[in-house]
Amino acid sequence: MQTIDTLLVASHVIPVSPSPAVLADHAVAIDAGRIVAVVPAAEALARFDAKKVVRLDHHALIPGLVNLHCHAAMTLMRGLADDQPLMTWLQDHIWPAEGKHVGDAFVHDGSLLAMAEMLRGGVTCVNDMYFFPEATARAALRAKMRACLGIIAIEFPSAYAPDANGYLAKGLATRDAYRDEPLLAFSLAPHAPYTVGDETLKRIAVLSEELDLPIHTHVHETQDEIAQGLAQHGVRPLERLRKLGIVGPRLIAVHAVHLEPIEIELLAREGASVAHCPSSNLKLASGFAPIAALRAKGVNVGVGTDGAASNNRLDVFTEMRTAALLAKAVSGNAATVTAHEALRMATLDAARAIGLEREIGSIEVGKQADLAAVELSSLETLPCFDPVSHLVYAAGREHVSHVWVAGEARLEERRLLDLDETELREKARWWQRKLQAP
Amino acid sequence: MQTIDTLLVASHVIPVSPSPAVLADHAVAIDAGRIVAVVPAAEALARFDAKKVVRLDHHALIPGLVNLHCHAAMTLMRGLADDQPLMTWLQDHIWPAEGKHVGDAFVHDGSLLAMAEMLRGGVTCVNDMYFFPEATARAALRAKMRACLGIIAIEFPSAYAPDANGYLAKGLATRDAYRDEPLLAFSLAPHAPYTVGDETLKRIAVLSEELDLPIHTHVHETQDEIAQGLAQHGVRPLERLRKLGIVGPRLIAVHAVHLEPIEIELLAREGASVAHCPSSNLKLASGFAPIAALRAKGVNVGVGTDGAASNNRLDVFTEMRTAALLAKAVSGNAATVTAHEALRMATLDAARAIGLEREIGSIEVGKQADLAAVELSSLETLPCFDPVSHLVYAAGREHVSHVWVAGEARLEERRLLDLDETELREKARWWQRKLQAP
Repeated sequence: MQTIDTLLVASHVIPVSPSPAVLADHAVAIDAGRIVAVVPAAEALARFDAKKVVRLDHHALIPGLVNLHCHAAMTLMRGLADDQPLMTWLQDHIWPAEGKHVGDAFVHDGSLLAMAEMLRGGVTCVNDMYFFPEATARAALRAKMRACLGIIAIEFPSAYAPDANGYLAKGLATRDAYRDEPLLAFSLAPHAPYTVGDETLKRIAVLSEELDLPIHTHVHETQDEIAQGLAQHGVRPLERLRKLGIVGPRLIAVHAVHLEPIEIELLAREGASVAHCPSSNLKLASGFAPIAALRAKGVNVGVGTDGAASNNRLDVFTEMRTAALLAKAVSGNAATVTAHEALRMATLDAARAIGLEREIGSIEVGKQADLAAVELSSLETLPCFDPVSHLVYAAGREHVSHVWVAGEARLEERRLLDLDETELREKARWWQRKLQAP
Repeated sequence: MQTIDTLLVASHVIPVSPSPAVLADHAVAIDAGRIVAVVPAAEALARFDAKKVVRLDHHALIPGLVNLHCHAAMTLMRGLADDQPLMTWLQDHIWPAEGKHVGDAFVHDGSLLAMAEMLRGGVTCVNDMYFFPEATARAALRAKMRACLGIIAIEFPSAYAPDANGYLAKGLATRDAYRDEPLLAFSLAPHAPYTVGDETLKRIAVLSEELDLPIHTHVHETQDEIAQGLAQHGVRPLERLRKLGIVGPRLIAVHAVHLEPIEIELLAREGASVAHCPSSNLKLASGFAPIAALRAKGVNVGVGTDGAASNNRLDVFTEMRTAALLAKAVSGNAATVTAHEALRMATLDAARAIGLEREIGSIEVGKQADLAAVELSSLETLPCFDPVSHLVYAAGREHVSHVWVAGEARLEERRLLDLDETELREKARWWQRKLQAP
């Protein structure tokens, strides 16, 4: 018998890769934080002497979900302003509130609340972009959640930094300070073409190459953005990014709602990824991203929640479902983005976008044991002809019972093990009063 | 002190009508199944001597949700076939399974499972259409849930009846048998223009008038349906329905995805209602219903889940959210279908479509006490600047803690009081095995 840390014995294991199979009565063996075997339950019980055995008799065990686009700290502004178009929402509500409140404590507390919500919803890794990424890093380490933190760059001053070079310097220093943390990764995060100048973008292109960092940026979210970009620069924003060296295999193009066929070709040819945020795109009336067309050309597409100020749930289950449903109606083809494809977009494809596809995103030997168990025996998920269908179309984040990050349990029977929910609630209410104060 | 049955004291009461207000620290007094007062909590506690007082300290108390379009029994086919276009899905999967299995027991058991799911999700009334409505009636009485049952009519034979006249005769007999049940109402439910002939539709128009019954029918769900109708009848299906006397204030036009401006005008002029089923319309790639345009012309629009074979969740929370988000992107206006409007579409507007707007759909004195309490103190719903925003955009059906129908508790702290969940689960699994058998 081989001694291991943990053995998870599940009625269904859904590895996502190498095959889209559903493995009935299988087990996942975990040692030193990594997956060491995915085998039939009977074989696993005969072969492994596990310090801890977890029985998941009515569950689907899936790779932990990867949220490909978030502004975690904005959870403190959840529902602060709804039913507003993007620019009104930003200029009249979000930016003023940010100007008044955003600082290290706001970002830490908001990120921690977001991470608690995400872990409870089966999300084990978040690709984040916000001011004070160092505070988000501390929150991730406290939540013991995997995070890819954006080294944010924007031209206008904030409490965080005076100018783009200041932002980059601070973000790079944060990366240096946390480079030995196994749960943390970093990206370069120029906010958007309309808020970042040519010189900064050129520098980011070079840094991305030198440091092998993804570039996480909003692009082509609205028609207004494109019209404004054309007026100011004579080309559409994506073309400007291309000229500045930003469009390549490390690019994560967030939203990418409005794309000409030639732009889809460009993203495909360059091996760029798209972070699809369907709820946010609908809520801000940004439009319908051409997901079927992107995928048909081979563009890697992951899903993201966006921040809780524009979604208002950091719920990758809802995004999977919305992505699958919306792609069908937009393409006019009900076979577009099947349940399994949606699950892959929320796991392995999102991991690939942030360069972590060899570490996370599927249940395969050698990978990090970032996993979620979803209970499928509630009235809402019966009968069950296909667990993958239920994961995407019927279940919700509330059915996530257990979560592991790097082999360690973070959620057990819906109870967060490392975070105090009462404290988180009190802190959220404290910030609510502060934001509501005249 | 006035003696009453029940007093619900809530941190927020959201009556929906007469005003879109959020009433902080209010109470709803219930006696003999009806609402007798909606007043500040302190006043209520001084004025009423209630047999039962329920404290809802972190909850929004809302009218019970009304699911304006469902095929409850189809819950037994949840996820049986996904990612298929409407006609393939119907002809290759759903109709063969129905042909083999649908009978009184199937409809009773499927409807009961559906009603358990709906009650757990805050739905207190369902507008249903399916074979064997008598079996659905029995399920509703067992679940103690309000239901408007379709007297279904379709030209082709089934285990239920041999032809349209047979369907109508059976349905009308069911209505006669149950006419004294206060929780049950009835509609005439010709399945769709493409499955019901002119003579039957003419008879239904007369019956609707004579018996004052709503007409619940699928119409303009897909472009194919319209093309086929044009080819067979020389006019689009809605125009055919108009000529046959079906389009009037009692019509509930289900789906109504593809509408010309003149058809929107027609529905408005005639005072017809639309049952909007956004998830189903997306999943079957039917298209995007013009909700903003319908509402702008004054058409009454409620939301429905459709059956669990095409959604796959009987979750009016998800439909409210999807309706609000989708309308924004379809109309290009983020201010379209605000959170409060979505809540109204899922309560009072749906009640109006089935002719029950004087009985249910809002928290007003004299109405039936059909209510749901939604807990808003979980991590997913904090901070909370506006409870209505959270009900639509952040909360889920899992946050429904209590439900009352006609003043009687049906769900308490998420536990169904009248149904045995274990038995329902076992029955669902029994049907699953039967449907999977070769």
